[in-house]
Amino acid sequence: MTGSYSESSYSSAGSVSPREREQKTSKGFTDFCVKNIKSAEFGRREIEIAEQEMPGIMILRVKYAENKPLQSARIIGCTHITAQTAVLIETLITAGASVRWAACNIYSTQNEVAAALAEEGIPVFGWKGMSEDDFWWCIEKASNHQNWQANLILDNGGDATHYMKRKYIDKFRCLKGIVEESVTGVHRLYQMTKNNCLPIPAMNINDSVVKGKFDNLYCCREAVIDSLKKTTDIMFGGKQVLICGYGEVGKGCCSALRGMGAIAYVTEIDPICALQACMDGFKVIRVDDAIRIVDIVITATGNKNVIRREHMNKMKNGCIICNMGHTNSEIDVDSLRTPDLTWERVRSHVDHIVWPDGRRIVLIAEGRLANLTCSNVPSFVVSITACTQMLALIELFKAQPNKYKGDVYLLPKKMDEYVASLHLAGFEAQVTELSDDQCQYLGVARNGPFKPNYYR
Amino acid sequence: MTGSYSESSYSSAGSVSPREREQKTSKGFTDFCVKNIKSAEFGRREIEIAEQEMPGIMILRVKYAENKPLQSARIIGCTHITAQTAVLIETLITAGASVRWAACNIYSTQNEVAAALAEEGIPVFGWKGMSEDDFWWCIEKASNHQNWQANLILDNGGDATHYMKRKYIDKFRCLKGIVEESVTGVHRLYQMTKNNCLPIPAMNINDSVVKGKFDNLYCCREAVIDSLKKTTDIMFGGKQVLICGYGEVGKGCCSALRGMGAIAYVTEIDPICALQACMDGFKVIRVDDAIRIVDIVITATGNKNVIRREHMNKMKNGCIICNMGHTNSEIDVDSLRTPDLTWERVRSHVDHIVWPDGRRIVLIAEGRLANLTCSNVPSFVVSITACTQMLALIELFKAQPNKYKGDVYLLPKKMDEYVASLHLAGFEAQVTELSDDQCQYLGVARNGPFKPNYYR
Amino acid sequence: MTGSYSESSYSSAGSVSPREREQKTSKGFTDFCVKNIKSAEFGRREIEIAEQEMPGIMILRVKYAENKPLQSARIIGCTHITAQTAVLIETLITAGASVRWAACNIYSTQNEVAAALAEEGIPVFGWKGMSEDDFWWCIEKASNHQNWQANLILDNGGDATHYMKRKYIDKFRCLKGIVEESVTGVHRLYQMTKNNCLPIPAMNINDSVVKGKFDNLYCCREAVIDSLKKTTDIMFGGKQVLICGYGEVGKGCCSALRGMGAIAYVTEIDPICALQACMDGFKVIRVDDAIRIVDIVITATGNKNVIRREHMNKMKNGCIICNMGHTNSEIDVDSLRTPDLTWERVRSHVDHIVWPDGRRIVLIAEGRLANLTCSNVPSFVVSITACTQMLALIELFKAQPNKYKGDVYLLPKKMDEYVASLHLAGFEAQVTELSDDQCQYLGVARNGPFKPNYYR
Amino acid sequence: MTGSYSESSYSSAGSVSPREREQKTSKGFTDFCVKNIKSAEFGRREIEIAEQEMPGIMILRVKYAENKPLQSARIIGCTHITAQTAVLIETLITAGASVRWAACNIYSTQNEVAAALAEEGIPVFGWKGMSEDDFWWCIEKASNHQNWQANLILDNGGDATHYMKRKYIDKFRCLKGIVEESVTGVHRLYQMTKNNCLPIPAMNINDSVVKGKFDNLYCCREAVIDSLKKTTDIMFGGKQVLICGYGEVGKGCCSALRGMGAIAYVTEIDPICALQACMDGFKVIRVDDAIRIVDIVITATGNKNVIRREHMNKMKNGCIICNMGHTNSEIDVDSLRTPDLTWERVRSHVDHIVWPDGRRIVLIAEGRLANLTCSNVPSFVVSITACTQMLALIELFKAQPNKYKGDVYLLPKKMDEYVASLHLAGFEAQVTELSDDQCQYLGVARNGPFKPNYYR
Repeated sequence: MTGSYSESSYSSAGSVSPREREQKTSKGFTDFCVKNIKSAEFGRREIEIAEQEMPGIMILRVKYAENKPLQSARIIGCTHITAQTAVLIETLITAGASVRWAACNIYSTQNEVAAALAEEGIPVFGWKGMSEDDFWWCIEKASNHQNWQANLILDNGGDATHYMKRKYIDKFRCLKGIVEESVTGVHRLYQMTKNNCLPIPAMNINDSVVKGKFDNLYCCREAVIDSLKKTTDIMFGGKQVLICGYGEVGKGCCSALRGMGAIAYVTEIDPICALQACMDGFKVIRVDDAIRIVDIVITATGNKNVIRREHMNKMKNGCIICNMGHTNSEIDVDSLRTPDLTWERVRSHVDHIVWPDGRRIVLIAEGRLANLTCSNVPSFVVSITACTQMLALIELFKAQPNKYKGDVYLLPKKMDEYVASLHLAGFEAQVTELSDDQCQYLGVARNGPFKPNYYR
Repeated sequence: MTGSYSESSYSSAGSVSPREREQKTSKGFTDFCVKNIKSAEFGRREIEIAEQEMPGIMILRVKYAENKPLQSARIIGCTHITAQTAVLIETLITAGASVRWAACNIYSTQNEVAAALAEEGIPVFGWKGMSEDDFWWCIEKASNHQNWQANLILDNGGDATHYMKRKYIDKFRCLKGIVEESVTGVHRLYQMTKNNCLPIPAMNINDSVVKGKFDNLYCCREAVIDSLKKTTDIMFGGKQVLICGYGEVGKGCCSALRGMGAIAYVTEIDPICALQACMDGFKVIRVDDAIRIVDIVITATGNKNVIRREHMNKMKNGCIICNMGHTNSEIDVDSLRTPDLTWERVRSHVDHIVWPDGRRIVLIAEGRLANLTCSNVPSFVVSITACTQMLALIELFKAQPNKYKGDVYLLPKKMDEYVASLHLAGFEAQVTELSDDQCQYLGVARNGPFKPNYYR
Repeated sequence: MTGSYSESSYSSAGSVSPREREQKTSKGFTDFCVKNIKSAEFGRREIEIAEQEMPGIMILRVKYAENKPLQSARIIGCTHITAQTAVLIETLITAGASVRWAACNIYSTQNEVAAALAEEGIPVFGWKGMSEDDFWWCIEKASNHQNWQANLILDNGGDATHYMKRKYIDKFRCLKGIVEESVTGVHRLYQMTKNNCLPIPAMNINDSVVKGKFDNLYCCREAVIDSLKKTTDIMFGGKQVLICGYGEVGKGCCSALRGMGAIAYVTEIDPICALQACMDGFKVIRVDDAIRIVDIVITATGNKNVIRREHMNKMKNGCIICNMGHTNSEIDVDSLRTPDLTWERVRSHVDHIVWPDGRRIVLIAEGRLANLTCSNVPSFVVSITACTQMLALIELFKAQPNKYKGDVYLLPKKMDEYVASLHLAGFEAQVTELSDDQCQYLGVARNGPFKPNYYR
Repeated sequence: MTGSYSESSYSSAGSVSPREREQKTSKGFTDFCVKNIKSAEFGRREIEIAEQEMPGIMILRVKYAENKPLQSARIIGCTHITAQTAVLIETLITAGASVRWAACNIYSTQNEVAAALAEEGIPVFGWKGMSEDDFWWCIEKASNHQNWQANLILDNGGDATHYMKRKYIDKFRCLKGIVEESVTGVHRLYQMTKNNCLPIPAMNINDSVVKGKFDNLYCCREAVIDSLKKTTDIMFGGKQVLICGYGEVGKGCCSALRGMGAIAYVTEIDPICALQACMDGFKVIRVDDAIRIVDIVITATGNKNVIRREHMNKMKNGCIICNMGHTNSEIDVDSLRTPDLTWERVRSHVDHIVWPDGRRIVLIAEGRLANLTCSNVPSFVVSITACTQMLALIELFKAQPNKYKGDVYLLPKKMDEYVASLHLAGFEAQVTELSDDQCQYLGVARNGPFKPNYYR
């Protein structure tokens, strides 16, 4: 996490596993397991910085501090533990909920943030670099605790959901519902409905309109510049860049790179996206036709083996390769692990691969997602998702008994618009209100929804 | 039609209605009714210019000249008669069809183009400024002719469709289908299916993906600059412009204006579009808060009375008002027809409205659509729609007897992609082909469709 | 002049030369010679439209209406007679001057504007399409009139200056000075100082900082889009455009074209400008390497024979060629006048040149300056020059007897800044004032000049 | 230096001053003084990364490896010791020079790079965080060494020049010349010429055209995004940013911020720059009128106290303040050191200043230059300066005895163009060559210079 305080100064705890160490907060609280409770103060600062950039969730915090819609809600959380999630967690608590939280990924925990949450008396379980065994141990700790009977799950990837279902099926059936944000987790939920084995309602946050419109396009517009600068300090002006894929991610990358004076070329398989690239002023070519001249190659396709050894053999000396797409398989990194090539780690997340003739290419993050590995996800965009999650939790918690069944639901369009409106305040944006006349003319209600249901 | 030859030089025919004059082509053909057959040569040049900018339909013309998929198709056409439609019409004929054509609008006919079509022996009926009575007379001439039994209708607005159904129901039932491109026409078709009175299949071209992605955004990006320059010669650099609405039209306008150094402000009713405007770098405000400072106001909402007398009372001296939206009701022009205000027609399509204190505002096209009135629709974008129309006609004509019923159909996604691909050639764009491996990984066929059906 | 009222309606005066017709204004004034005094009303409207876009000169008009700094100044004007010059002329008169005016070009007079000036009792001499003989007759009429002894010349090209000097040397010696705006005129003045034969002071307006910073860059950014749209209706999105030259004109063209979604390529001879093009994100290539793929070629070099027959032989069918540079020799148009090629005039200012194989290229304005021929110069930018001219006239008129000698002077830097400031009002721009402390720190006076003298 | 290997792993040498420790390279060389010779390998990697982005200097290295124009040149260098300077130093040596090098700043040395140079047997003296006394000791070591008599100085700031002149005036008089790149150093040289005490020629690199055109504009376009991301991770999309000053730095910042979707406002004192901002589409306002709404404030004026306590008192909670201008006095940081405000260091180079009511503003780098403190200067731009320095050194070294006197010289325009051309290769840019005909027409030589001497 660039820019944040490095942990080295307080990592003296060393190699003993957090599970084996007894830690205590300044107030004597012990129901947690983090890397080092002493780093809480640094984590608190990161949380405060995140709060500044999360206007939507902060508005909800103020609003729900009074009427406490989650009073007596008990939520099992299983997400990345970062400064931004911390803002969500503390807002859930302000709204009346009690929570227990586990990390959904063995690498992604910001240790000092986890410490800051624990220091506030929140049962949080997870640390960076934990083992697979630790991972499930943390989920167990979050989901099973004495007399604490959860009524909601906030999941990312479906692991908490499936763990509960497998191990504590009775408790699982009593839940009021699940809120899931990831592609994978949503996929698993739909599988369950197909097999008729989802006994409780679930909200699919991943396919909400606000997420679709804002996440990829705007996040990647920022992240592509940020991750390349942080790793290589390259100057963008005049650089020739090949962007593979002109979906939302590709569009965001192209827009940012042009803004910095780079020349972007696009590859596409879909003629519709290809024609958009043309109309937006980008030359559409094939990898083979561009690979000898470009300075940077960015993958954003969702496909596999888009950049292969045959391409990398032809790249210019010093060419940078960076993956911004969905998987770690867009660049065929395995093909670079041959005896004739030398790998040199030159900086954190940066390898030089050296050909026998001395030519070197610069590989970012070993082909994993550069935007997640080398850049911070903008808190502002996480705020949009966090609001959606919170509203979905409240919706499930407050719903009339038979409103939702054992099925997967999308957030109502109106809530999408509400989440968007929460984020306008930060921009001093003033939305126009319709007159009665105009409502009638357009056939919409004064407060929306303004777009048809099929709108994306 | 700016830039084209003015008609004055050959309009000596004067005030006698074309219906009452006998006209003959150089080859003695008389089955047509246009303003002045002598202007054919000028029309031919306009058609040639349009052909240069319509790569997709010209590729189809070459391709279908051989296998003639419309051999023995007989098409009633009812559309705007412009250079671009002429390119479509002549391509349909090259593909084997015989056609009879009527204007779908009493104002939009390019007289010299109609003459050029007639000169080629095409039965075409329509002229600029014809009466309502003339309008229906033309449709009658196009749809009813001796032994010529139509089997397809290409409609824009539904008038030919409804005329046929009302007057020649038996012939109507024998049609292989209808292709309809307009919002209104599509709406009327859906009404018919609701009432169970559409006996034959119809293709809804208006909602095809290529139309949605390209028409509004890219047409308006060009048209906003063009129509304001042609009417007012205003300099855009540094001008403050209020764009009401941030849908596709508004997005296109904002993008073009920024490119010319103007400062764009946006109004929106929908928080999602408002947030997009923010993220794209445009200030979102209300009309009231901007109206005193802006130099240009553009409406692009689809709503009515967006700019009202109360706003216009506050505008700066010289402020320009221009409608780029869907209707002629976005600007409340009626409210300007009061005794205290003076109207001065200063140029074609430009009125100055003068307040008692001498302040004047500049109204473009009396509030009608500036992009259609004061600018030419780019041939390139019309080519996309024309290809879609042509493919839909062939699909209906060639379909197995029971494939389509009395219902409204969308063009298959794959045809959308095909139309897009036809237009890539003009940009020298090279689409990438998937390997077998990648097809399998993505779960798509090598030639597409590449996007799910619900993709928009 | 696109968009303006055509003259056909009032050109019944027909082919009799204006010099041979007696014309009278509605008030009986006859000391003028224009095409048709009856078109005055249309010209007045064009002048009013121009006033809206000339904030600087209109501010001076209000300011100088009171103290009349040009009281008893008698100015011989010899410039293009357009709506914008009319605004300047009427402002000079408001400031106390009496004027006599001749056209500086046989083609550029807006006849209806000349009529509008005459109608106000201003002695104006010139019409569109006059002969060489007429031209000098008009200058004679403007410079020699009974007891009216001029004390200033406002010249464009130097013709009035040289006519006076040659024919009325005594009167010439009595002038307080000359203000000259054109490259050519300035060149001729410097020649005179070299030869020691300039007896009176002259102000070189052409090399003022405001002109250099604003004229080419911002005018051409607007004009390139405008002139191509008005002549060809081409869609810019996705088009590949070759811009020859990356000086101010080329920079303006590239910026506008990118803003509309075109892909711009640049040619340059100067490595410094070439490197700027690179850093701004434009590919720098040679004409030969791009000529087969581009859709539009724009010359902006100031050089000759930049596009030659050998290039045009290789262009794509439909490629457009357009000159935005300084001369009419950038495109070797003569090389196209060979028997194997056919010229077709397809629209006003548009020729198709057809190769034996049917391929056609589209030549704009026969290679003359497209921005002047096919587009209107933005009134806003003319306002900057007009203010500079007016201030220079006042400076010469009011100067202490020995302040200026028989030499060519540049406008003081401070006046440049004043002219700029006059144009900020139109943009609601608020300039910041320095505190005493800051003035001292920077070593500049509170009201400027803010930049050193060598600043360009 | 973000992204580079942290030193913690090899800093065990601890608090003993480098001057007091004996260090030896792997080959037994000892004529150097750096922080820790063991970090040489890390430094070598940073140098290799820099080489990739410095095409111009690398071309010169290859070219001069053969004819060795600096054979028997002995250069005293006194500059920042960074990876980029290391590339220059090693190129000078390849060209035949022998060098001795001292740091020109007590903070800016990249210790591992200094180690890498020493490891190659280069006498280099300097380390990060050295004292004032150490600083002069290093210059002494560089300039005075046994029988090594320097004949050139490459200086940055003038300290080596003045030290030599003061302490070793005889040796100083024997130098062939000085090359100086900084504003300060150049100022001091001009002072010396004024006082008639510069006995040898000096080249002013700071005012070369290539430096002026590329350094500020393009460096700051990159640095503004980079330094704010690295310190605050802020999302730019939709943010309102106030840029104080629209010179080259301000222009670069505005361009980059717009490219990322931010809304930029500009303040200016000079009407000419203000009008440019308007024409480029930025609103020009006063600090007071914007300060309550903006999210980020950037100073780029060269002035002092542009942002004062009175402004900061009104800023929004979370507003970021960042200086990109010339001095550390643009933001009145002293005014924030009052008892009522609390300073919290939240990250490296980031302080929160907390008001009594809880509102906090975010101050970057305590008001020092953010682009230098929080971002890396792009190697590409340093390459331009480095080439200029190298060519100037060769010019002085090779000049005929009386060509240059005791005066300050500018680099000939032609060398400016040569340096630019060296950097085009990296962009695959192809410059066009003039024909004889065209040379004659333009009045320039085939290989330039292409612009007049007064061109800037």
